[in-house]
Parts: sequence; C-alpha cells; structure tokens
Amino acid sequence: MSAIKNSRDEVLTRGIKEFLKTAPKIYMPGVSIDSVIFSFHVDKLKVLLLSFGHTSYYALPGGHIKKEENLDDAALRILRERTGLKNIYLEQFYTSGKHNRIKSDVVKEELRKYIGASSHSWLEQRFISVCYYALVDETKAKPKIQEPFTREFKWFDINKLPKLLFDHKFIIEKALARLQADLDTKLVGFNLMNDVFTMNQLQQLYEAVYQKKLVRANFQRKMLTLGVLERLEKQYNGKSHKAPYIISM
Amino acid sequence: MSAIKNSRDEVLTRGIKEFLKTAPKIYMPGVSIDSVIFSFHVDKLKVLLLSFGHTSYYALPGGHIKKEENLDDAALRILRERTGLKNIYLEQFYTSGKHNRIKSDVVKEELRKYIGASSHSWLEQRFISVCYYALVDETKAKPKIQEPFTREFKWFDINKLPKLLFDHKFIIEKALARLQADLDTKLVGFNLMNDVFTMNQLQQLYEAVYQKKLVRANFQRKMLTLGVLERLEKQYNGKSHKAPYIISM
Repeated sequence: MSAIKNSRDEVLTRGIKEFLKTAPKIYMPGVSIDSVIFSFHVDKLKVLLLSFGHTSYYALPGGHIKKEENLDDAALRILRERTGLKNIYLEQFYTSGKHNRIKSDVVKEELRKYIGASSHSWLEQRFISVCYYALVDETKAKPKIQEPFTREFKWFDINKLPKLLFDHKFIIEKALARLQADLDTKLVGFNLMNDVFTMNQLQQLYEAVYQKKLVRANFQRKMLTLGVLERLEKQYNGKSHKAPYIISM
Repeated sequence: MSAIKNSRDEVLTRGIKEFLKTAPKIYMPGVSIDSVIFSFHVDKLKVLLLSFGHTSYYALPGGHIKKEENLDDAALRILRERTGLKNIYLEQFYTSGKHNRIKSDVVKEELRKYIGASSHSWLEQRFISVCYYALVDETKAKPKIQEPFTREFKWFDINKLPKLLFDHKFIIEKALARLQADLDTKLVGFNLMNDVFTMNQLQQLYEAVYQKKLVRANFQRKMLTLGVLERLEKQYNGKSHKAPYIISM
C-alpha cells in the first residue's frame, strides 16, 4: 500500500476530507441515491460507470439527498451534475436495503490510503439506496468528475461490465429487468432512439434490452400496431425496408 | 385541547415516551416503512388502516428499520407484528421522499397532548418511506395495536377511504396502480382469492382492482388462456357457469 503523492491525489485527499466534514451538515443520514444511466449506441446497450480510486473497481454514479431537498429532485440534480443533461427520462425503480450492502474491504483500504485510519467516517454508516434509472444519449452526455473517489467515467456494454463495488451489479440487473418491463408497458425505449430511426435500429434496441434475437416480421407488426410510429416515406431514397420512422406520440 | 386523563391514554403516553427514548438506539434515522395491506372480501378491495390518536385521521401501518436489519426483513417483521400473518405476498413498489411529506399540524398537536411541548422529538425528523404492498386474507389477519399512536385498526373499502395523514393517500394510489400492473404481468391477484373460487368471484376481484366493469366473455377467455386455472368439474353440483376453479401454477 503505497503512499499517495502526486498532485491529482492530493486534490482527491482534500476533496474527501472536505466532503466528510461538510456531508453531515448538508445531507440526510442513512439514505443515498444510485443511478443506472443507460444509453444505446451503435447496437449496444451501455451503462455509465465511475472508476473507484486506484482500484480496478467501478461503481454507479450516485449521491446524497440534501436535508431540505425532495428525493426526486435530488436524483435529477445528481444526474445533471454527473452528465450535464436535463430533461432526461428518469424513473425510480427500486430501493436497496440489505444491512451489509456497502461493507467493502476494497473501500475501507482505499479510504485508509487517502485519509488514514480514522474509522468513524460518515461514509461508513449504513446506507439504504434509492435507485433510479435514466435513459440518455451518450453522445450528448458530458460526464463530470465530482465524487471524491472518482478518477474516470466510462460507458460499459451491459454484457461486459467490469468489477463492481457494493451491490451495484445486483442494482444494474434490477434496472435492466425494470427497463425490459417498461419497454412494453410504457414504451420508454423511444427515449433511447434518435428523432429519426429505422425499424432495424429499433429492433436492435429491443434486442439489446431483452438480450435476445427477435423475429423481424413479428417485431415490425407489433411496433406498427402500437400506432405511435410515423413513416417518413418522402425523405427516403434507398431500399424500402430502410425507410425511417419518427415517433409521433 | 383537553388534558389526557383516562388510563388507556396514560398507557399511550408512557408508550410514546418510551418509544422516543429507545427509538434512536434501535432504528435507522430518516427511513421508515409504510405498508399498503390489501384484502379482497365480499366483492370489495380493502385497505388496512390505523386510527391516529384522538383524531379522525387514519394512517397506513408502518414502522422503522432496525440498525442491523435488512430492509425487506423489516417489512416482513412489521407486517407480521401488525397482522399476525407470515408467508404473505409482499412487494416493494415505491419510495416516497418529498422533504415535507410528514409535516403535519394534526400530528404536532396530538403529540403535544401526550408529551407536552418538547419539540426535538425523533418522530419529527424527516423520513423517507420505503413502501410495500401486501395481499392478505382479512379473515385470517389478526391486527394488533403496537404503534404508540394507534387506537384501532379498520379495513376500508378502497373507494371509501377516511381522512389520511401525511402522503398516505398518494401512497395508496401508487400501490393500487402497481397492483393493477402486477395483476396482468405477475398474476398476483390469485393471492387474494380463496383456494377454490368461481370465475365470477375472480372477475369481481379484477373489477375491484381495475375499478371498472369487465365483459364476462372476454374476461373468462383471457383467464383460461393463462393456462393456470383448473376446473373442479367433479365437485360441482349447480349451474355450469358456477363450477369452481383452483389455481394450478
């Protein structure tokens, strides 16, 4: 366990100390927010994750709730702070509350590197986490590093997730299950498409979310019977099955 | 505002004082659980509610999470303590977190009656509430009074709810919306039926949950195509449309 010496790490150390000093005054104890931020880009369903300190672990972007702040407003603020995006589709889907869910030797050791052996840190209390999922366009998101422990942000293919801290793998699985359900019942998938898209692109999204291949004819029939797609015949110059659609809800 | 004098109220006062003294040591701060306990009895969808002190207000049965207790275990414990029931269908459906959601003059005044003007009570902190819904057989439930403020339990028709404290009306509406969705996708409705039931009784349940009349032929066809109902032809002696079913999932 080497000492932390470079200036980037000194900034982190100061950031963590400052956070631990002010957090108890600013935030509610015992409750946090974690966000599963999905994007769909070049055929892949992806999740935005944060690297954790000097480790090979990643974590969901999250944060805490200010003492006078509504829960949903806190989730929106955290998403805005992390991605720079407003007016995003955001949905609360689960609250995770196993009593030992954030107990982690990885975190404890990393914490020790930066702030020594002081054990009664605000971060070590038990947290119940209210989880939201968001649907964003990763080409428009401008992730910012604001959490004291974060060194980088990265979009990961949902099928190629890195090692995750805490119960964050479980939370991502819960989010995916909810996204699958909402795709059918609330048609949220269109939030992950560009304004204009082909039936083929839409099918790729559904296949990425459901994690399985779909039969083209059935899929197309199902989508068209929803009555929300408008075909842009006039703008089209290529083969007929590639004529693009827009959503007209 | 009359002084509280009878012995039942003295018990309540002692109970509240004892609760406020021990709660900070036993329970997590800032997070509570509220349960929307549904039953279906004689054509009516009902919700179990608790009267609040000497007021005409009612509230959802709820409780707090012990410091070392898993969230879901706390919800099960609270349900068991309140109804005496185990092995109940219980589902987390929402976490309510408006910052002023439990600010209430009714509660403040009632609190003052019992324990005077002491203002820094544990109960007055902000609580984010994790909400569960449960499906129970009200004929088997044996509600018990355990909360310091409760004087009686009562089952209310979902269409005839009394005045409710806090955001509990909103929480019940959220629970009903989730129950409606789960009825179709998870077939949870059968948890509200007896072991043996007629198609007519099942339709009454669906109508009570969806809050609208359904067409008999369509409903019957839909239920039979689920492939989970078994008809008890041999036990039947009356008219054919009353032959009972059992669920065979």
